[in-house]
Amino acid sequence: MIIIGERINGMFNDIGEAIKNQDPTAIQKWAVKQIEAGSHYLDANVGPAVEDSPEVMKWLVEVIQDEVDAPVCLDTTNVDAMEAGLEVHKGTAMINSVTAEPSKLEAILPLVKEYDAEVIGLAMDKSGVPKDAATRTAKAMEIVANVDAHGIPMEDLYIDPLILPVNVAQDHAPEVLESIQQVKKLADPAPKTVLGLSNVSQNCTNMGLINRTFMVMAMAVGLDAAIMEANDQEMLDSIATAEIILNNDVYCDSFLQQFRK
Amino acid sequence: MIIIGERINGMFNDIGEAIKNQDPTAIQKWAVKQIEAGSHYLDANVGPAVEDSPEVMKWLVEVIQDEVDAPVCLDTTNVDAMEAGLEVHKGTAMINSVTAEPSKLEAILPLVKEYDAEVIGLAMDKSGVPKDAATRTAKAMEIVANVDAHGIPMEDLYIDPLILPVNVAQDHAPEVLESIQQVKKLADPAPKTVLGLSNVSQNCTNMGLINRTFMVMAMAVGLDAAIMEANDQEMLDSIATAEIILNNDVYCDSFLQQFRK
Repeated sequence: MIIIGERINGMFNDIGEAIKNQDPTAIQKWAVKQIEAGSHYLDANVGPAVEDSPEVMKWLVEVIQDEVDAPVCLDTTNVDAMEAGLEVHKGTAMINSVTAEPSKLEAILPLVKEYDAEVIGLAMDKSGVPKDAATRTAKAMEIVANVDAHGIPMEDLYIDPLILPVNVAQDHAPEVLESIQQVKKLADPAPKTVLGLSNVSQNCTNMGLINRTFMVMAMAVGLDAAIMEANDQEMLDSIATAEIILNNDVYCDSFLQQFRK
Repeated sequence: MIIIGERINGMFNDIGEAIKNQDPTAIQKWAVKQIEAGSHYLDANVGPAVEDSPEVMKWLVEVIQDEVDAPVCLDTTNVDAMEAGLEVHKGTAMINSVTAEPSKLEAILPLVKEYDAEVIGLAMDKSGVPKDAATRTAKAMEIVANVDAHGIPMEDLYIDPLILPVNVAQDHAPEVLESIQQVKKLADPAPKTVLGLSNVSQNCTNMGLINRTFMVMAMAVGLDAAIMEANDQEMLDSIATAEIILNNDVYCDSFLQQFRK
């Protein structure tokens, strides 16, 4: 499971304040904390506190990579901010995200190619989040075809079938699980799959339980990556156990401790 | 999720003693306790304490059904004991189990038909537990074909793809998950699927975590039923959550409490 830590997001007060005041402290603290918990990527989202400008994204990427040697997932809808982040990023960046809309694909995929980046493709277009698995997969296929046409390796594409909260859109969850399986069959090699996991439990009770249950169910059908709270120990234990069951990690009696390392 | 409570089994000391002494107390206590926890069926296995005879199985079924109004899962390899249990059973009994061996199918399926019972079909033959999903599914198909030839409704068949402990046979778990999906495609209507769940964690550390993680992963790929520890609250909470995610139960903020009812 590829873990993309979600915590460096301006919607959290400490990060919003840090960005507004150009103070790296909270950002670098969460960078270290998430990497120590096992994150492979760190999502970076400016959030609502300041304008999502190229200058701010550039600063955010530099602040993170000054502190930790990890790739950043550039979480912005502003293509100029995306490119500013790519310009200063060390190693392979991830772009979060592109949709199946032709104008977005044409604006963003050339950047993915130019900077040898990875990219998250949301299985939707301007009509919004599809209701069923088949429509999600059809939107994913449009992204797959465009990624291929741009000469981007399929393994660098992460399709997000878009989970909605179970308390308001309960019928979406089984469709998302179905779509994960379908997406893995769209190409050979297959694109990767990713979820913005905590969406599933937004404004629900028992959020942690819902998150980790959905996570292991998605792993059972082939999920590769998740944008998630990386410092949730029960979640990490559930992932460790699912990796054992899927025979991805070798069982030993201390498998939970081994996974934490 | 159809829950088959596993606790009335002579391998547990209290049940073994109760059977040996023909004392219904412990058996009826566990019958009530498992039904209160949400069991739909109660497995009954004489175990090693006394001989698995027709008289003992008959007594066991009567003792259970004198106390609770629930179907019993007659867990025996002795066909005479099976028939003795069926003769006194009230309502629809479940037979646990038959394999794909022709001699077993010919001995047991006529009983299933005669007593209008349900039956668990183990996806194996005299060669033992298959190593991969395809062989499990092939063995399941032999059972499906024989069940159909005997005029038994396909919904009354529960295929068990046979999980082994992850600490000794880790490569089996993903094959079992794959096989559950394949078995659901063998007929229309499909046979049901069942697992002897606690096998997955035998002699492992973190047994509860492994059991409930495997359970929700199996639910994600279509598991219908499990022979399991029915009085494991964390397991029941995980099942309740998976049922919400699969849109089988309607979400409300008190979904865990609703499931317990």
